[in-house]
Amino acid sequence: MTSELARNFIAGRRGGAGSIRLQSLDATTGDALPRAFVQATPEEVDAAALAAEAAFPLYSNLPAERRAEFLDAIARELEALDDDFIAIVCRETALPAARIQGERSRTANQMRLFARVLRRGDFHGARIDRALPERQPLPRPDLRQYRTGVGPVAVFGASNFPLAFSTAGGDTAAALAAGCPVVVKAHSGHMATAERVAEAIVRAAEATGMPAGVFNMIYGGGVGEALVKHPAIQAVGFTGSLKGGRALCDLAAARPQPIPVFAEMSSINPVLVLPAALQSRGEQVARELADSVVLGCGQFCTNPGLVIGIASPAFSLFTAQLIAELGQRPAQTMLNAGTLKSYEQGLARLHAHPGVRHLAGQVQEGRQARPQLFQADARLLLEGDELLQEEVFGPTTVLVEVADEAELRRALDGLHGQLSATLIAEPADLAHFAALVPLLERKAGRLLLNGYPTGVEVCDAMVHGGPYPATSDARGTSVGSLAIDRFLRPVCYQNYPDALLPDALKDANPLGIARLVDGETTREPLSR
Amino acid sequence: MTSELARNFIAGRRGGAGSIRLQSLDATTGDALPRAFVQATPEEVDAAALAAEAAFPLYSNLPAERRAEFLDAIARELEALDDDFIAIVCRETALPAARIQGERSRTANQMRLFARVLRRGDFHGARIDRALPERQPLPRPDLRQYRTGVGPVAVFGASNFPLAFSTAGGDTAAALAAGCPVVVKAHSGHMATAERVAEAIVRAAEATGMPAGVFNMIYGGGVGEALVKHPAIQAVGFTGSLKGGRALCDLAAARPQPIPVFAEMSSINPVLVLPAALQSRGEQVARELADSVVLGCGQFCTNPGLVIGIASPAFSLFTAQLIAELGQRPAQTMLNAGTLKSYEQGLARLHAHPGVRHLAGQVQEGRQARPQLFQADARLLLEGDELLQEEVFGPTTVLVEVADEAELRRALDGLHGQLSATLIAEPADLAHFAALVPLLERKAGRLLLNGYPTGVEVCDAMVHGGPYPATSDARGTSVGSLAIDRFLRPVCYQNYPDALLPDALKDANPLGIARLVDGETTREPLSR
Repeated sequence: MTSELARNFIAGRRGGAGSIRLQSLDATTGDALPRAFVQATPEEVDAAALAAEAAFPLYSNLPAERRAEFLDAIARELEALDDDFIAIVCRETALPAARIQGERSRTANQMRLFARVLRRGDFHGARIDRALPERQPLPRPDLRQYRTGVGPVAVFGASNFPLAFSTAGGDTAAALAAGCPVVVKAHSGHMATAERVAEAIVRAAEATGMPAGVFNMIYGGGVGEALVKHPAIQAVGFTGSLKGGRALCDLAAARPQPIPVFAEMSSINPVLVLPAALQSRGEQVARELADSVVLGCGQFCTNPGLVIGIASPAFSLFTAQLIAELGQRPAQTMLNAGTLKSYEQGLARLHAHPGVRHLAGQVQEGRQARPQLFQADARLLLEGDELLQEEVFGPTTVLVEVADEAELRRALDGLHGQLSATLIAEPADLAHFAALVPLLERKAGRLLLNGYPTGVEVCDAMVHGGPYPATSDARGTSVGSLAIDRFLRPVCYQNYPDALLPDALKDANPLGIARLVDGETTREPLSR
Repeated sequence: MTSELARNFIAGRRGGAGSIRLQSLDATTGDALPRAFVQATPEEVDAAALAAEAAFPLYSNLPAERRAEFLDAIARELEALDDDFIAIVCRETALPAARIQGERSRTANQMRLFARVLRRGDFHGARIDRALPERQPLPRPDLRQYRTGVGPVAVFGASNFPLAFSTAGGDTAAALAAGCPVVVKAHSGHMATAERVAEAIVRAAEATGMPAGVFNMIYGGGVGEALVKHPAIQAVGFTGSLKGGRALCDLAAARPQPIPVFAEMSSINPVLVLPAALQSRGEQVARELADSVVLGCGQFCTNPGLVIGIASPAFSLFTAQLIAELGQRPAQTMLNAGTLKSYEQGLARLHAHPGVRHLAGQVQEGRQARPQLFQADARLLLEGDELLQEEVFGPTTVLVEVADEAELRRALDGLHGQLSATLIAEPADLAHFAALVPLLERKAGRLLLNGYPTGVEVCDAMVHGGPYPATSDARGTSVGSLAIDRFLRPVCYQNYPDALLPDALKDANPLGIARLVDGETTREPLSR
């Protein structure tokens, strides 16, 4: 690591004419890292957005196979990032090396998943209704629909996944797969990490002959607002706080041309522990749940922040077991001082509320986060108290004991939108509580049974999304291959000759993809 | 037609406790129709939204086949609407009977198209990634994704298609297909038509055993704002003006929980007449284009409002031919007095602009709209003058002559988003101007060749959408079966037992639908 200045990435070059210097901090010691970062000037924000815009026509019209090769090349470059890189990430985030090594693989494999989606071709959404020249009273023209990229995408990464939800994370992978050049706002919590990842993407872009503006990254506080307002930007991906995400949504909605924002924001991920499960394995559930609450210092979007059960001796015993489990978990270093401060403030709000009791956890002090367990009166859920709906980012959870099944239902009714909702249940519970499932489905993007929500598989079937405020648009996911849909728009060609049609719609079906032709799915070529 | 009061439709009943009476007007004479309509009170708006909310859990969880039967029943009820009904629609809109008869069929067939989509089952978007219990370093859980309705939808119909884009129009059909109950804000321009159509839907709902709140309709000015703000409403479909659509978007974005608005608003539908086509059939193009401009009194979303050509003797001749054609087309009665007034104001703005010349058309006066032709300096497009970007709803179009190919490209670059963009071209033109196609693709949802945009086929491949301000979200369409996507959200089930999974995701594949299983599309049942 040198002490040179680190500049913005604009159209494959580095630029930093500005005078504002930013320091990245060691998450454990608070010391500044030697390298300083140059905040993008307004002209550089503009240049980055225009570089993406300039790259869009060429990049979005490349064959999907070429974009797949680019994503594969990014995957290889990410995997080639060495131990020095791992050390930088660990320093900036205080996350352990094994976790970062795993996240490096996950991030590379995420790129490969989207490469497979591109090769599979279903993302094209090809639909063909052939001409019916003899139809009465009017003939039908030849109509062919496919989906193409919306245009340049702005990406705001998260602090808690410095690789998988950041510079080369799921939003970037999905946008690049969709044919949309990207402008990343580098996360202030891991600027050196972001630089190394951006360099890897630029190397991959060069090696595979991509247009220079396909990837851009800017540093700085406040540059995000200018980026979201830039007329070239056509969509936004964001992972972070409710406040930050909502601010971007409001900015985007107020533009002369409003644009969609896919913000993944705030979720308390309720876990319902049902009676038969408590009866048969309450102690095990308490241990596993405590593991999930403290995993990664509780810094996961899907951390279980609310545990609900029905009053019973078994639930009282479970509460005692959870107190014992969480009371003995060690303190951990958080991602940065700001995260720790937010955690302390969140705990203070819980401590101060007359309807909330502190059950376990050492006094929160010092430079590390201490796991905590609270219990809230059920009426807070029933009355829609905002305190219980707010995510406290860190290793803490809130228990709620409801009187009976009816109250459980009313408590669930009062919940805001969630990324996940979990049932801990035995077959007898499922037989009895099956009616809860449709209710949970309205509240969350992912419903788990007898698991803990803190693992998010990157695959075709994953939904990492959900009703507001979990995300800004329940119709999207920010993890898994469906994430590409957020950045695609349909276009219809009417009576176009084969030569001018996109490959996905040509008669001969040169891509060999499945297409909906006159209402039937087929891979066959067409005769006109 | 009786002179009783016509009340709101709430959960299958009629309610109108309010004191505000609304009159529907004869579009030709301006006379009030005998029947008065009762504006919904705030309590009735609330009741309608809550009725939709109450119906949602049951309705959205019905088998798709049941919803298909409901849509089929609506289609039959619409077709059974008799000559009296046609007479009412004609009176309220001044549209000719043959057009309304055709629109009745189109609207019924639109319902049937969505019934076919429901039976085909691809709307479920079923994806299954099976468990990999032996995977290292971590096992993969069983993950299954499908799509379900977002919740109650508010629908705002259009004046220009009193059937196909109104009470039982494409937004209603798509929302009902998606499993979303609907609250329609009855269009003030055809309240009696809306009543008859709403009665038809209610009959169909009763005959097929749907929950009472599946369809609701409220009358009144200003009730739309309360409807969009209602917490039960989860999405909005709108067809109408840019001003009206944008106002709803802004309301929806400012809610505590923002919701998506799919507004189809303003498009000038550029038609490019290329040199070889002008040379070989300029006169025919002038005639056909004039037909398209005056069709339905120019009251189509896809009416060609801008005609662009490259300066040449052939283009001058074409201009003269278009002058002759449009100069002789008769005046027609518009949908209502407000539409005529807007048309007059739009013409006045064109007349007043120093860069615009009036080429043909009688002085606009009296109770009918007179077709008009204008020519604008190319610099208005090049400089982004807002006047040329604004839709003038009615039988008028604006010619623009550009100097050369380079100027044509710059002029297109300056266009806002469009529903359609048309090339009138011979093969020689296409060989020469192929590079325009990607540019048009960025600007419009539908690209036509040698056709006129005023026909919108209802089918799988249609896109009636496009970048802002054509619509509020380029990722949707309001015509064609893809319209259902706007009202669906994905949900993932993790490790759920078969019995609790939606049918679309059960092992045995009881719906027999195509599913993406471990990355491959198959209709086969699964063994766990």
